[in-house]
Amino acid sequence: MTATALPSHVPPTMRAAVLLAPESLQTQERPVPSPGHGQVLVRVEAVGICGSDVHYYRHGRIGDFVVRSPMVLGHEPAGTVVALGPGTARHQPGQLVSLEPGVPCGRCAQCRHGRYNLCPDVSFYATPPVDGALCEYVAVDEDFAHPVPDTLTAETAALLEPLSVGVWACRKGRVGPGSRVLVTGAGPIGLVAAQTARAFGATEAVVTDISPHRLGLARQFGATSTVDVRSQRLADTGFSPDVLLECSGVAAVADEAIRTVGRAGRAVLVGMGGDTVPLPLAHVQNFEIEVTGTFRYANTWPDAIALAASGEVALGGLITHRFGLEKAEDALTAADRDHTTVKPLVCPQPG
Amino acid sequence: MTATALPSHVPPTMRAAVLLAPESLQTQERPVPSPGHGQVLVRVEAVGICGSDVHYYRHGRIGDFVVRSPMVLGHEPAGTVVALGPGTARHQPGQLVSLEPGVPCGRCAQCRHGRYNLCPDVSFYATPPVDGALCEYVAVDEDFAHPVPDTLTAETAALLEPLSVGVWACRKGRVGPGSRVLVTGAGPIGLVAAQTARAFGATEAVVTDISPHRLGLARQFGATSTVDVRSQRLADTGFSPDVLLECSGVAAVADEAIRTVGRAGRAVLVGMGGDTVPLPLAHVQNFEIEVTGTFRYANTWPDAIALAASGEVALGGLITHRFGLEKAEDALTAADRDHTTVKPLVCPQPG
Amino acid sequence: MTATALPSHVPPTMRAAVLLAPESLQTQERPVPSPGHGQVLVRVEAVGICGSDVHYYRHGRIGDFVVRSPMVLGHEPAGTVVALGPGTARHQPGQLVSLEPGVPCGRCAQCRHGRYNLCPDVSFYATPPVDGALCEYVAVDEDFAHPVPDTLTAETAALLEPLSVGVWACRKGRVGPGSRVLVTGAGPIGLVAAQTARAFGATEAVVTDISPHRLGLARQFGATSTVDVRSQRLADTGFSPDVLLECSGVAAVADEAIRTVGRAGRAVLVGMGGDTVPLPLAHVQNFEIEVTGTFRYANTWPDAIALAASGEVALGGLITHRFGLEKAEDALTAADRDHTTVKPLVCPQPG
Amino acid sequence: MTATALPSHVPPTMRAAVLLAPESLQTQERPVPSPGHGQVLVRVEAVGICGSDVHYYRHGRIGDFVVRSPMVLGHEPAGTVVALGPGTARHQPGQLVSLEPGVPCGRCAQCRHGRYNLCPDVSFYATPPVDGALCEYVAVDEDFAHPVPDTLTAETAALLEPLSVGVWACRKGRVGPGSRVLVTGAGPIGLVAAQTARAFGATEAVVTDISPHRLGLARQFGATSTVDVRSQRLADTGFSPDVLLECSGVAAVADEAIRTVGRAGRAVLVGMGGDTVPLPLAHVQNFEIEVTGTFRYANTWPDAIALAASGEVALGGLITHRFGLEKAEDALTAADRDHTTVKPLVCPQPG
Repeated sequence: MTATALPSHVPPTMRAAVLLAPESLQTQERPVPSPGHGQVLVRVEAVGICGSDVHYYRHGRIGDFVVRSPMVLGHEPAGTVVALGPGTARHQPGQLVSLEPGVPCGRCAQCRHGRYNLCPDVSFYATPPVDGALCEYVAVDEDFAHPVPDTLTAETAALLEPLSVGVWACRKGRVGPGSRVLVTGAGPIGLVAAQTARAFGATEAVVTDISPHRLGLARQFGATSTVDVRSQRLADTGFSPDVLLECSGVAAVADEAIRTVGRAGRAVLVGMGGDTVPLPLAHVQNFEIEVTGTFRYANTWPDAIALAASGEVALGGLITHRFGLEKAEDALTAADRDHTTVKPLVCPQPG
Repeated sequence: MTATALPSHVPPTMRAAVLLAPESLQTQERPVPSPGHGQVLVRVEAVGICGSDVHYYRHGRIGDFVVRSPMVLGHEPAGTVVALGPGTARHQPGQLVSLEPGVPCGRCAQCRHGRYNLCPDVSFYATPPVDGALCEYVAVDEDFAHPVPDTLTAETAALLEPLSVGVWACRKGRVGPGSRVLVTGAGPIGLVAAQTARAFGATEAVVTDISPHRLGLARQFGATSTVDVRSQRLADTGFSPDVLLECSGVAAVADEAIRTVGRAGRAVLVGMGGDTVPLPLAHVQNFEIEVTGTFRYANTWPDAIALAASGEVALGGLITHRFGLEKAEDALTAADRDHTTVKPLVCPQPG
Repeated sequence: MTATALPSHVPPTMRAAVLLAPESLQTQERPVPSPGHGQVLVRVEAVGICGSDVHYYRHGRIGDFVVRSPMVLGHEPAGTVVALGPGTARHQPGQLVSLEPGVPCGRCAQCRHGRYNLCPDVSFYATPPVDGALCEYVAVDEDFAHPVPDTLTAETAALLEPLSVGVWACRKGRVGPGSRVLVTGAGPIGLVAAQTARAFGATEAVVTDISPHRLGLARQFGATSTVDVRSQRLADTGFSPDVLLECSGVAAVADEAIRTVGRAGRAVLVGMGGDTVPLPLAHVQNFEIEVTGTFRYANTWPDAIALAASGEVALGGLITHRFGLEKAEDALTAADRDHTTVKPLVCPQPG
Repeated sequence: MTATALPSHVPPTMRAAVLLAPESLQTQERPVPSPGHGQVLVRVEAVGICGSDVHYYRHGRIGDFVVRSPMVLGHEPAGTVVALGPGTARHQPGQLVSLEPGVPCGRCAQCRHGRYNLCPDVSFYATPPVDGALCEYVAVDEDFAHPVPDTLTAETAALLEPLSVGVWACRKGRVGPGSRVLVTGAGPIGLVAAQTARAFGATEAVVTDISPHRLGLARQFGATSTVDVRSQRLADTGFSPDVLLECSGVAAVADEAIRTVGRAGRAVLVGMGGDTVPLPLAHVQNFEIEVTGTFRYANTWPDAIALAASGEVALGGLITHRFGLEKAEDALTAADRDHTTVKPLVCPQPG
């Protein structure tokens, strides 16, 4: 297979933000990748910073996923197609695209059943040992570089990844017209989940958190009401949802929230953290509650694009900080310095 | 509404086994009930004894359900229709019937959605304050008195209730052709669940327990293999099921078993006991496992009858003891005296 | 059972519009019904006129349903609770309610599975021999008298019935976020179906008709584009929907429309008319299209109320005419005189 | 990419049965293919002859699929792995495999949703312009060469393809425990569909045909009863199925059969033939019947293997004729000469 000749405006090397060890990030010069068969080369223009990036940065691992050699972080990228590899057909150079960060094998039992998020052979950005997208260029399977309409920018297109998490959570919870939804945790995922639930037809979306600032954002972005769980017990609100979208990752919050779910309700565990969640057995049995975990997402980009393009979900308002690639470490630590941080972005292109 | 005149062979009073207080059961003489509109009068010929009967007998309560006044136990009855109330159309006297022990309201949101097991207004035998069926006659809504074919006896017809629990568990777990199923706990429910799973098309049904006697029964009744968890850790077997039917009610067993469930698998919590089950969060998320509780059953009798009538599920072999109504207390304590006890029956009719 | 004493402001008799024979409607004086057990008495304030009312008026029958004795028409009523029968608990007098026109048995296999619209023993307004609601008072099971919020009027509450048809069609077609929907026929049902599809998350709702007036209404009420099939062939539009909601009842329209449905798409046959629809076999097979009929609705009122109350579906704009009860015949023939007729209402209460 | 060196026992060329024009089949010498990346080379030992092979042989086309250049027929092959291409991991030489005849792209929207049978870019044996498997060797993606246990032979392994059609039909019709199934048409597909329905838990499987011979086979293979529709109208039997598996491909048969389907039932159109099927509108609406076409199958081999290996579906009995590769034309015309023909096989290996 011969390499694709890259356009003259694409340089031979690029900068990348590489995690060398916990709390040690370095900007390195690396070759610009050449798009293989079915791939396109994308100039990365915005990358959202996710809690998992921060966790890898702090601890060098998430559970069984351990960073054993230097790795580029970042899995929420958007940018512009600049070159087409052999065998591509879907894109033209200049197309703004949002990148789905995991490319599954397409052949295993999970893929064949449409559950490609569970593909054991997926190649997923910034999950050891696969490099992420905190760099200037990435080569990506064209089918996972989703064209976005002009109503989106590279910045909002980057946020289609967290929006996909919200879409997937709502699908797993079967949120639909008339649903009454509880969202625990008003971080970036909780905030998009509440908006998505409303866009899916939920008539109520109650959001809980311990931060008045985030609860204010929740009310601004789709929540029909909010509960500050520092001052009010959830059970005392009397709210009994059809669907719980647990986005806090705190076991005690999950436990308390599951106990409020109504008959035949669903509890979707999105937030990560803690080893076990104590499942209230009698309630889960007597009300036949279905509890499910979510792992990434599958087939969500079309919906996410539609929701963002129509304005039903407002993504721009979640962006609180922007950094250049050399300041990626500041992006990873923004939440430590500023409690109003929701979603920091890294914009890898110079100036 | 005038009372139905009962046939002359039906006496005015009958015996009933009444729970007065924990560990205090008394045989009392009570009026034979008169079937109301849409009801039939059934002469009770066999009543299975369930763990919940034993629990009420021992403790006078199950969780929030407290026996506050004398209550007749028993919710696994079968017998013969002896009289028809006004407005009945489905039965003839002499018909052998298996009784579905809960009659829902038919009007509430749960009923209207076909989830009548979750009806908050259900009237369910031997759940305080509703009397059960450990007596000679019961009046019952004709639609919940299911005719059974001649290939069944009153004794096997009584066991359609626990079989319904197994059918419901398999439905909730979406057991189907090719499923690989793990059943934890080889009590009466686990034993019927394993058989039912096989009848639903499961190609593997692995059963675990701590009793070699019960594991032997499991192998006799549908298990493709068994694991004695006193001597072998489940994880060491390498078996990764599509569906877990948790029938032990032991939190540690549930926790360990959920960890073995494969991608996109289901874990159905049938067994009761303990306040919480520790849910292994990372596994449930990474594999998107769906965990659900079951509460009784809905629309299961037709399947249960078909499975029993065809012999795909063998019920007779589960019956280990038979007692008259006066000996109902012995039925409730049989398992204490004989560790090979699976299902004791009470046969309320004299002689 | 003793009769409920009616409040003094309720008269002993009322007027009702009775169909004596095809094209022969008479206003008769009839006793005000007394609410039975679990029923409420409702003062009828608005009744929508449906195509099936018109069909009974014209022909005295719809298929196998034949009007053999005088029958009150009307099955889209709303009004105010004025008296409570024994055993009621959900309503207070003065509550505005929208009436679900069919009360199922609650006991049969269809009801138990949550498919109560298929109950063979349903009692449905204005379906022979059951009288409808074109009268001043009706007694109705309280569980089928749905309270509506103050943001609705009796007139819009009456239209929750056709909205329910649209909700049911969207559910059957699994319309959801991102769906691309084709609605053939822009009568009252097509117009609410298109709006409902949008409210369910459809990003495209293309509506076809032969009337520029109705197509204009469609654009006003949710259609993202319209096709006048007198001047343009549907196939030539290139639109390939995920879901077809066939609301024209014209076999040739259905045939042509089904041929445009995309892979794994759904075709929902809502419109009635004609004996058979020619199913394009190769297309249905090669694309695995699911074709389904709809019959009334089940469990739709909560969603319909939410959609109307939130304004996501605008019902008021569909009302084109209002008549008193004595002028009910004019309501039934309005469409003959005025081609802009969408939904005529009858308001049974005297001026 | 370098070619895989083939084992010395694999010859450089092989015989293939090539369709030159309608009714003109020629045995040609062709190069043995070299397995590409992820492919294995399979020595073909048995190939079932399907009605579509016969149709291509007779007419040179099926609908829009036209044979424009010489094409090898045959899409029901089984054989033995004889060489491994680069990047393979699942097989060892000597493994008996059943080949899934269509390899989808794995990337498109249909594939990503698990509906790979609807992949517009699928490469499917003996569908123009893709060559089939009526030859001595084929190279195939290893993931679509399904290992079969020793209890199967190459001959029965070849019949896993028609069995997959039956499995898919039963899944589409949601056949399950207690289902009552009608199978119209007792050709090879109808015969496996009836058996599969029973294996899926159907308690009744009524099979119709016009051939007493085939009806006899149906009774031998799983039918609980049969109807000879030359002498008895289906409607007169009073049988109202939950699921219709239409395998005759005759529009009038489909029409009559759909009219018997019960409330909320499913009608699965498997048989091909005719341009349109007349859909009985009122019945489909009043009973909310779901009518769906099937196109090949997805994810069926694991179930098919399990059903065949356990003996729940008996495949060997369907084989009525065996021919060498040079006699492939006799296999294609066997049904013309012998009305008892069910499934002819071609065994491509010499003597």
